[in-house]
Amino acid sequence: MRMTITIAVDAMGGDHGPSVAVPAALDFLSSSSESSIILVGVAEAIEKQLAIHKAVTGKRLHIHPASEVVMMDESPQSALKNKKDSSMRVALNLVKSGEAQACVSAGNTGALMATSRFVLKMLPGIERPAISTILPTVKGHVHMLDLGANVDCTPLQLLQFGVMGAMLVSAVEHKDRPSIGLLNIGEEEIKGSETVKQAAVLLKESGLNFYGNVEGTDIYRGTTDIVVCDGFVGNVVLKASEGVVQMLSGFLRQEFSRNFLTRFVACICNPVLSAFKQRVDYRRYNGASLLGLQGVVIKSHGSADRFAFRFAIDRAEQAVSNDVLLRINNQISMTGEGLN
Amino acid sequence: MRMTITIAVDAMGGDHGPSVAVPAALDFLSSSSESSIILVGVAEAIEKQLAIHKAVTGKRLHIHPASEVVMMDESPQSALKNKKDSSMRVALNLVKSGEAQACVSAGNTGALMATSRFVLKMLPGIERPAISTILPTVKGHVHMLDLGANVDCTPLQLLQFGVMGAMLVSAVEHKDRPSIGLLNIGEEEIKGSETVKQAAVLLKESGLNFYGNVEGTDIYRGTTDIVVCDGFVGNVVLKASEGVVQMLSGFLRQEFSRNFLTRFVACICNPVLSAFKQRVDYRRYNGASLLGLQGVVIKSHGSADRFAFRFAIDRAEQAVSNDVLLRINNQISMTGEGLN
Repeated sequence: MRMTITIAVDAMGGDHGPSVAVPAALDFLSSSSESSIILVGVAEAIEKQLAIHKAVTGKRLHIHPASEVVMMDESPQSALKNKKDSSMRVALNLVKSGEAQACVSAGNTGALMATSRFVLKMLPGIERPAISTILPTVKGHVHMLDLGANVDCTPLQLLQFGVMGAMLVSAVEHKDRPSIGLLNIGEEEIKGSETVKQAAVLLKESGLNFYGNVEGTDIYRGTTDIVVCDGFVGNVVLKASEGVVQMLSGFLRQEFSRNFLTRFVACICNPVLSAFKQRVDYRRYNGASLLGLQGVVIKSHGSADRFAFRFAIDRAEQAVSNDVLLRINNQISMTGEGLN
Repeated sequence: MRMTITIAVDAMGGDHGPSVAVPAALDFLSSSSESSIILVGVAEAIEKQLAIHKAVTGKRLHIHPASEVVMMDESPQSALKNKKDSSMRVALNLVKSGEAQACVSAGNTGALMATSRFVLKMLPGIERPAISTILPTVKGHVHMLDLGANVDCTPLQLLQFGVMGAMLVSAVEHKDRPSIGLLNIGEEEIKGSETVKQAAVLLKESGLNFYGNVEGTDIYRGTTDIVVCDGFVGNVVLKASEGVVQMLSGFLRQEFSRNFLTRFVACICNPVLSAFKQRVDYRRYNGASLLGLQGVVIKSHGSADRFAFRFAIDRAEQAVSNDVLLRINNQISMTGEGLN
């Protein structure tokens, strides 16, 4: 029997607030038969969106009021100190109290991270949360972490990212021993910074399926199931990759709209180009996991649209139904002293 | 009056050695009316390639013998100690002695870096060389450095990369005050590692046209003329970007060869796709500058083909004819104590 999963959605976060979060939640509910959603935020604003989409609250859709909103440029400290009734914080409180099993928010990353740590606390043995996301590869996809939660990482933290990534992948994708690559500037062991070299030693001794060093090209080649790196590198790589995709899409568009003939050609190959676009659509990869917390928290891109936000809710449901949290916790306890 | 430029080409370096370097040099000579080339390496191997391409040595094409070859996986130390008559080292010696004004090599990066430092020495005031390359952007192109010469950079080194990048761009592109962006995980000053924060302070006080922090997406948006980062980040970003381009090209190819109909469509839009491919052709951006040395050294990609290698030779000619070296040197002397 499948358990019923309740997901708390921060309806006010992100660039678009309830106008994206509410319809995304409705899309999710219409395709998921068991799970339910709690929309957290200013009730009036949420109800307005429900009315627009001709939806009403019911057994599987609730509203939980929260009077404040964390701004996208607000400092984590300010959010923590001054916004105790923010939609973000209240949604996390619902996870803490057990009323919900996961929280999804498109709000300010720093504030979400800090508030999650404060409300939910870290798993024992994990120093800092990591942000993990899925990226497309030529073979399928890869999980990469950290993507910006930690700018200066220790070798031990990189090892912990490896543990958390491996547990996430083995839980969600039912792979026994997913392979872990350590992002570096060359495959040879002598390459890279001191931190990365020491992390390689720890990963090798960890009992995890450590592939070794991987290079930037390996991410999209799908050389390993998981790529581990510090948050500075991960964040820059992720954003640079988005930049490349945007640039290439722009070039393609330009070439196809150059003149009458090319515009005609564009019409003919529209189905092919659409299939291509769908494949590289970043929105399908929306929803980064905040790992290392005593609760499932999924961060949606701040600028996510309805389609993208819904993928983030899917990801939350997946993480809960596959017991990601329990698995990470068990592995951390097993690896035990090695991680401390 | 344009001066005559002589370029020493390491004919043995890279994955393909003379079979790529020699025809690339011939292509270069046929389009450049003044410059001349010295092909450095095992004379027999070079002559064989000249014969294949029905070319002979003459006023603008010379062979300079070198009996040894630095292997692609050889350590920089071994190359320095054991390969004193390598094509790489002899080509650099020709720059040192003034017989050539620039060296182009597709050989092992670490060995080229170490041998360049040993033979040519650093410019006074510069601690370490940096690798700089050109990348395409939606607006044109951007110069990015460092791309892997330095894995753990100090704030001072990042400042020096800014100075060298600015001088390179102002020389080659005749821009008075090219803008410099510092690669970071957010635009706000509070973001990033300690090193990056301190580098921002130095760049702000340098008198250079410092734009501020830029993010990964900004690289390909062309937000600034120059993007400065440490070599670990630069290398990983560059290779990840290559990976994205390869993946997208593969997807596009797959979509167009899915069935009879899509293959037919591919034929029709072939001219458009070719124009697109040409625009994103990484070979056009081949040729990274090793900056900070008392001599012009250009590193070609190890796997470069004839077309790509020729771009690296072009880049060497450009750097010499625009006095890049003199300009960097002058700027370093002007900025003076600030850099030390």
